[in-house]
Amino acid sequence: MRAHVWVMPKQSVLDPQGKTIQHTLASLGFAAVKDVRQGKFFVLDLGGVSRDEAAKQVERISRDVLANLVIEDFRFEIVE
Amino acid sequence: MRAHVWVMPKQSVLDPQGKTIQHTLASLGFAAVKDVRQGKFFVLDLGGVSRDEAAKQVERISRDVLANLVIEDFRFEIVE
Repeated sequence: MRAHVWVMPKQSVLDPQGKTIQHTLASLGFAAVKDVRQGKFFVLDLGGVSRDEAAKQVERISRDVLANLVIEDFRFEIVE
Repeated sequence: MRAHVWVMPKQSVLDPQGKTIQHTLASLGFAAVKDVRQGKFFVLDLGGVSRDEAAKQVERISRDVLANLVIEDFRFEIVE
């Protein structure tokens, strides 16, 4: 089983890295880019578990290890 | 227009962050997780450009700013 996990700063949380990139892009002439948000993306390979069990484990892993739920949201997909 | 950009370490490149997470997960009892790779995920909002122009700009931005092509690959989608 393979899982994809996205971890993003919550909409209400400032994203200084994203802002910095947006300013850099503006200075390079990419004025069309109005906003940038940066998050993390994880690819997890799981062996020897069912799809349901993989989903259960990836949800716990995302919640407990990959994301800081105070400032971040996550979502995941079991892709194969 | 909104674009999603994924930037991942190349398959041939070590991913120490991913390895650290995998070891942490193993120590927490998630033995089913055989491999973890960590990358970056960006959401770009572009205003006042066509879909084709957005794709052209996002390709250049990914190549020149978001990814280090020596050690990273990228892919992107124009999502709306």
